[in-house]
Amino acid sequence: MVATPIPSLDLVPDVLAGRPRAIARLISRIEAGPEGCRAALAEVYRHTGKAHVVGITGVPGSGKSTLVRALALAARAAEHKVGIVAVDPSSPFTGGSILGDRIRMLDLTGDPNIFIRSMATRGALGGLARASLDAVDVLDAAGYDLVLIETVGVGQDEVDVVRAAHTTVVVSAPGLGDDIQAIKAGILEIADIHVVSKSDRPDANKTIAELKLMLMLAAPSTTSDAWQVPVLATSAAQREGIGELLAMLVRHRAMLQTSGEWDRRRQRIAETRILKTAEDIIRSRFNRQRHQEVGRLVGHVTDRELDPYTAALALLTQLEGDSSDG
Amino acid sequence: MVATPIPSLDLVPDVLAGRPRAIARLISRIEAGPEGCRAALAEVYRHTGKAHVVGITGVPGSGKSTLVRALALAARAAEHKVGIVAVDPSSPFTGGSILGDRIRMLDLTGDPNIFIRSMATRGALGGLARASLDAVDVLDAAGYDLVLIETVGVGQDEVDVVRAAHTTVVVSAPGLGDDIQAIKAGILEIADIHVVSKSDRPDANKTIAELKLMLMLAAPSTTSDAWQVPVLATSAAQREGIGELLAMLVRHRAMLQTSGEWDRRRQRIAETRILKTAEDIIRSRFNRQRHQEVGRLVGHVTDRELDPYTAALALLTQLEGDSSDG
Repeated sequence: MVATPIPSLDLVPDVLAGRPRAIARLISRIEAGPEGCRAALAEVYRHTGKAHVVGITGVPGSGKSTLVRALALAARAAEHKVGIVAVDPSSPFTGGSILGDRIRMLDLTGDPNIFIRSMATRGALGGLARASLDAVDVLDAAGYDLVLIETVGVGQDEVDVVRAAHTTVVVSAPGLGDDIQAIKAGILEIADIHVVSKSDRPDANKTIAELKLMLMLAAPSTTSDAWQVPVLATSAAQREGIGELLAMLVRHRAMLQTSGEWDRRRQRIAETRILKTAEDIIRSRFNRQRHQEVGRLVGHVTDRELDPYTAALALLTQLEGDSSDG
Repeated sequence: MVATPIPSLDLVPDVLAGRPRAIARLISRIEAGPEGCRAALAEVYRHTGKAHVVGITGVPGSGKSTLVRALALAARAAEHKVGIVAVDPSSPFTGGSILGDRIRMLDLTGDPNIFIRSMATRGALGGLARASLDAVDVLDAAGYDLVLIETVGVGQDEVDVVRAAHTTVVVSAPGLGDDIQAIKAGILEIADIHVVSKSDRPDANKTIAELKLMLMLAAPSTTSDAWQVPVLATSAAQREGIGELLAMLVRHRAMLQTSGEWDRRRQRIAETRILKTAEDIIRSRFNRQRHQEVGRLVGHVTDRELDPYTAALALLTQLEGDSSDG
């Protein structure tokens, strides 16, 4: 006899009580697709809004993962309950082995007050952004008061994930000139805090100076009156600057709350959540109806009888009639 | 008196005749948003389907841009008309100056048979994938028989752009160990051709061997019977391997056509186009209705009275009633 799996909704009380096993199981179901856990997620969502959600981004090689690990340990030492959601395929939390196996570490240190979860790259199937943000909800509702999202800072999807954080940290490393170019184009303007990692390297000062110059040259509209974007130097290996970063996160949260910016960001996060979820719904309905009405539209576009825009409008109208998610 | 701008549809005959000025103007309008040029794009789309569209991807620092430039020159020498769409914020075609100014080069060499266009990073506004693929259409319809899309290979949006190509080239560079990790997680399985750039470096052989090992270990389903994914070594600076890459692109296209895979890919491209356009429509309607019905939904989600999934379903229903795009 096969055991009947526990309904996702029945996991919620244990999630709210902060039980790691229930948290891990619910996140696994989120990864598998939203269909089986909508009621659970709706219930979880009602209990969110307490955590400070921090997005940590930067290109591969910038030392994000080492920084996240050091930051988590420092936050734990300061009595925070720390959740980590790694959405970075280059992260040792996520990647690691040759064939993309994920390392799932329930607990980095044997300490139940740190919970680490890597999210699978879903590739063409999409939904990674939505699933990652749902996982943040689970950790928030489970009582983790500091939730770190680690992501590669290139691409629309990654920018969207970072827009679902209260505070955004952009990590740069010395000697990655091209990468800083890449960062500045996409994410310079979204950084609340810049970190230059590997600050023990001789060329770290040059990187710090470059970032400060960029911030000076940036349009005034990108910085708030209440907050001057700082450039911090850290060396995760030597544990330097980590305490300062943690203190800066706390200061940023306090500034958000006293300036009224906190409410504006909560609203922005809600917008991002709704949009990413809507995109995910469309994508999954598209995949489900691939051999039916959607397949006919695809055929017309392939044969140049219909242009993609007209087909997309028709798709949105067709999907409207599909009530199987509703 | 202000001159009335030419309607986008009136640009189409000049686009189809291959006039660079009309091509550049139409692409600028595409970047500004699809609203003003839907009829033009529908007309353009009817004339597409002739170009070989090649996606070239790899993390910043992998040498993509130099490779694209060398490949374009070699293709031109072989009598191709070459179009380039750069969607890579680290590309010198796209980035370059401190404040993200774009270098728009109508013509790399003074030769009208090479057309280069960089696409602006639209950041939070989205739509970059859709706009880039519309630009590929314009170049295809204008008679460019080889269209190269250069993109950073991380992120869902970038993977989607590459899925809109017939042939995908993944560029790696020696000494970027972490980056290869990043690539393999997201895009190993989508490469039709691997290129190791900067092959004059002493550690290039190690990178080539690693990629070959990964391909050997990859699940058989990721390689087609008709095509063994090759690993090519190039040195764009020394012009080595560029001719081989061009020949491999031609071979890949021929294989697609003889194996029947060409039709399957054209269909996949149509699917991607429809989905990305549908996402773009939703995002732009969302932004337009931000202060009306959508604003109320956002407020409910911000206040935890509604979860993101239920709000996303409501959003899709509401947008259905908005016929201003239809």
